[in-house]
Amino acid sequence: MDKNLTLMTDLYQLTMMQGYFEANMHNQKAVFDMFYRKNPSNNGYAIFCGLEQVVDYVKNINFDETSISYLKSLNIFKENFLEYLKTFKFCGNIYAVPEGSVIFPSEPLIRVEGSIMEAQFIETTLLNIINHQSLIATKAARLSWAAGKDSVIEFGLRRAQGPDAGIYGARAAVIGGCSSTSNVLAGAMFNIPITGTHAHSWIMSFDDELTAFRTYANIFSDRCVLLVDTFDTLKSGVPNAIKVFNEMKQKGTLKEYGIRLDSGDLAYISGKARKMLDEAGFEDAFITASSDLDENIISSLKQQGTKINVWGVGTSLITSSDCPAFGGVYKLCAKEENGNIVPKIKLSENTDKVTNPHIKKIVRLYDKQTNKIKADLICLNDEIIDETKDLTIFHPINTWKKMTLKANEFYIREMLQPVFLNGECVFKHREVMEIKKYCEDEKNSLWDETKRLINPHIVPVDLSTNLYNLKTEMINNIRIKKGEN
Amino acid sequence: MDKNLTLMTDLYQLTMMQGYFEANMHNQKAVFDMFYRKNPSNNGYAIFCGLEQVVDYVKNINFDETSISYLKSLNIFKENFLEYLKTFKFCGNIYAVPEGSVIFPSEPLIRVEGSIMEAQFIETTLLNIINHQSLIATKAARLSWAAGKDSVIEFGLRRAQGPDAGIYGARAAVIGGCSSTSNVLAGAMFNIPITGTHAHSWIMSFDDELTAFRTYANIFSDRCVLLVDTFDTLKSGVPNAIKVFNEMKQKGTLKEYGIRLDSGDLAYISGKARKMLDEAGFEDAFITASSDLDENIISSLKQQGTKINVWGVGTSLITSSDCPAFGGVYKLCAKEENGNIVPKIKLSENTDKVTNPHIKKIVRLYDKQTNKIKADLICLNDEIIDETKDLTIFHPINTWKKMTLKANEFYIREMLQPVFLNGECVFKHREVMEIKKYCEDEKNSLWDETKRLINPHIVPVDLSTNLYNLKTEMINNIRIKKGEN
Repeated sequence: MDKNLTLMTDLYQLTMMQGYFEANMHNQKAVFDMFYRKNPSNNGYAIFCGLEQVVDYVKNINFDETSISYLKSLNIFKENFLEYLKTFKFCGNIYAVPEGSVIFPSEPLIRVEGSIMEAQFIETTLLNIINHQSLIATKAARLSWAAGKDSVIEFGLRRAQGPDAGIYGARAAVIGGCSSTSNVLAGAMFNIPITGTHAHSWIMSFDDELTAFRTYANIFSDRCVLLVDTFDTLKSGVPNAIKVFNEMKQKGTLKEYGIRLDSGDLAYISGKARKMLDEAGFEDAFITASSDLDENIISSLKQQGTKINVWGVGTSLITSSDCPAFGGVYKLCAKEENGNIVPKIKLSENTDKVTNPHIKKIVRLYDKQTNKIKADLICLNDEIIDETKDLTIFHPINTWKKMTLKANEFYIREMLQPVFLNGECVFKHREVMEIKKYCEDEKNSLWDETKRLINPHIVPVDLSTNLYNLKTEMINNIRIKKGEN
Repeated sequence: MDKNLTLMTDLYQLTMMQGYFEANMHNQKAVFDMFYRKNPSNNGYAIFCGLEQVVDYVKNINFDETSISYLKSLNIFKENFLEYLKTFKFCGNIYAVPEGSVIFPSEPLIRVEGSIMEAQFIETTLLNIINHQSLIATKAARLSWAAGKDSVIEFGLRRAQGPDAGIYGARAAVIGGCSSTSNVLAGAMFNIPITGTHAHSWIMSFDDELTAFRTYANIFSDRCVLLVDTFDTLKSGVPNAIKVFNEMKQKGTLKEYGIRLDSGDLAYISGKARKMLDEAGFEDAFITASSDLDENIISSLKQQGTKINVWGVGTSLITSSDCPAFGGVYKLCAKEENGNIVPKIKLSENTDKVTNPHIKKIVRLYDKQTNKIKADLICLNDEIIDETKDLTIFHPINTWKKMTLKANEFYIREMLQPVFLNGECVFKHREVMEIKKYCEDEKNSLWDETKRLINPHIVPVDLSTNLYNLKTEMINNIRIKKGEN
């Protein structure tokens, strides 16, 4: 991280902290879950992304002098609380699913245990980072699903919502499925492949298109992609590109090469361009397209038999334009009371906003034969699932919907891994390209029916019987307290 | 700026630069325009925002050792070009409309003049920053229009697309019309008001809601806003809040106070809550709402006579969720050829993507009586508009649509101001609250018909006769060259 994000939080986190401090509750233990309620873009899953930046943030929490004097200037914080903040750091535990994992709604993806102060404090920044990167990684996964074996390149920096959205968006896009990015800084920071050739302005800087192409080809023969739509794609751009490719061939400088289309009817133009290239003997020239693409347009173009084989995607990827927010939330699930940790629940007028109480974990159930995910089970943390016995799971609302996994025909995986233990960081850094590889494997643990873009098959996420019973009991107790039953 | 953004660019900017360098064209002068084509959210205007961060970026361009060695590692850049980059900085001119200005499509909002190297290089980051902040400022303007005299608070940090989107989004939101933000770091960086009280987790940390409210009220009596929907808004939350307000009244600690609603049917619940508060003698308690709000929901609630008077807006503001990208572009409009600056134009299969050639400026035409904007005129830079003569302007496509402004009944304002001259920064920093005030004045220069949320009246943006003639001539010349006519 490049700046001190300690103050990057909602003011209410700090007022609540002062409240706990004044009420002398600040050393009480609390447990929070980060989870989300709905997959973006009606996808069948999401990709968990951003954990490394959360770790950096937590490690570097530090109310420096500038921060303290700013808080003081607000006249809402007391001297002894500000004094306390000066040495404040995170001393608790954090468990999280690995970056690049396939995730589903309702699951506790990050569990934070600590004093209520520290566990509460990190909420906003943790959500900001995970919500952003998981959103973009999920969108990239959709795009690369649509593109099949073709490459998808992240091209969106200029339309990203500020510098970080461009930089960390590129990181997430590559993890989720893109092959490269145009963003040089992201390349430098994360050691990920970068690509790019020239813009319309290059062409317009020369007297004519042919001279522009020729000049470019002379300098960048190793990888020569010519943008052919500045004046007229089929009448000017492609014929001039072919001329230049011929010249290169004669000089023996032709290596990796192709054209880029950035406007017009891509299905029609790419077909015509392919034919012209092939007839001129350039069957291995690739055709890149980049004109307000998204996964639906790519799907449609492929269905029309388009000859495009590299897809540059900008706005729709870097902003996840059809669904520009990942609704991750962070909720109290347990708290110390009189020396004991007791489960907590939040009811709501909106029934789908009722939380799952207590300290929990995710147990992922795989089919032994196919290695595909059968279901995820949210369990109490101390529960043990026995793979040698039949396991019956049921839908958390329509409880009559049941499924039995036969003994020894499934295996389990616990998804939450320690990241901080008693304030000590036990997180192991992985290179982005390594996370990307892991994410590919993760996507392979899903059936195609779950990966399709529209109306995907929903992977069951059920509650263990113990958790279900606890939740039901707590809801009923609150209803009785309120005199409703 | 807190990090070196020099490498934050599309790779093709650097490959093109090397191309110009190799072709020995790098000292040729070029002029680029930044403009956009369509108002976000079908608004009648946009707010120009982010200029200060662009200035910071341009001032700090610096290919440091780390950057150079990264570029070297890519094996696409030559030694002499990398050597050149080591001392590269921006030495040209930049003109821009002031931050907080009301702007319209097609207008040159930033004009960059310099060597083609430097003018080309800054494209991506300039667009990234302006596109982001102008998007959010425009959304904030829509929200505050919907809220009328009520305050709108920016609450979106946790759903912002990364840290910068939260920080600079808060800045833009306040400029565009929000009264404050929950983002403490944005408060510290930009000296803007921040607000916030407590979350559901505060309530859930206590044995019961009443104790939670009471504890909060004891500590934060200066501004006491109680979140009333954790268990049951009307049966539990509001009655408990009233109890606490009564206790505060008796103790004489009641100052600024109110409740916050975060779920349920806001129209119904706010009406009931208002009645309960009024009947208990708390007519001056304010009601804040914050539950997936946007400008359409706020409009609808106000039409239903809601009693809410403070609006906390998160996701829809900080991501501009219905339109998450501002389509600003950056196009070459003139270039040195044989020692002369000649106009340049880009044609396109998509006719609305044809650019306006040459060095231009915006002349804004105001009605003398009302001080409202009549129209904007895009002119060649050396044109002079004479206010003492009748001025007839015409639609740039449907040229029969004409309007005559009578001599001495209008006055003009040139919108573009110098920001850099020969590389020297002549930009005058303004505090965000000052820009916000200017933006209010700017919005007052629009008729209400242009500010309404749906189907706004379109302010004419016309081309001067000279510019129109030049553009037409250039298009015809290209068509003749292509043998089309």
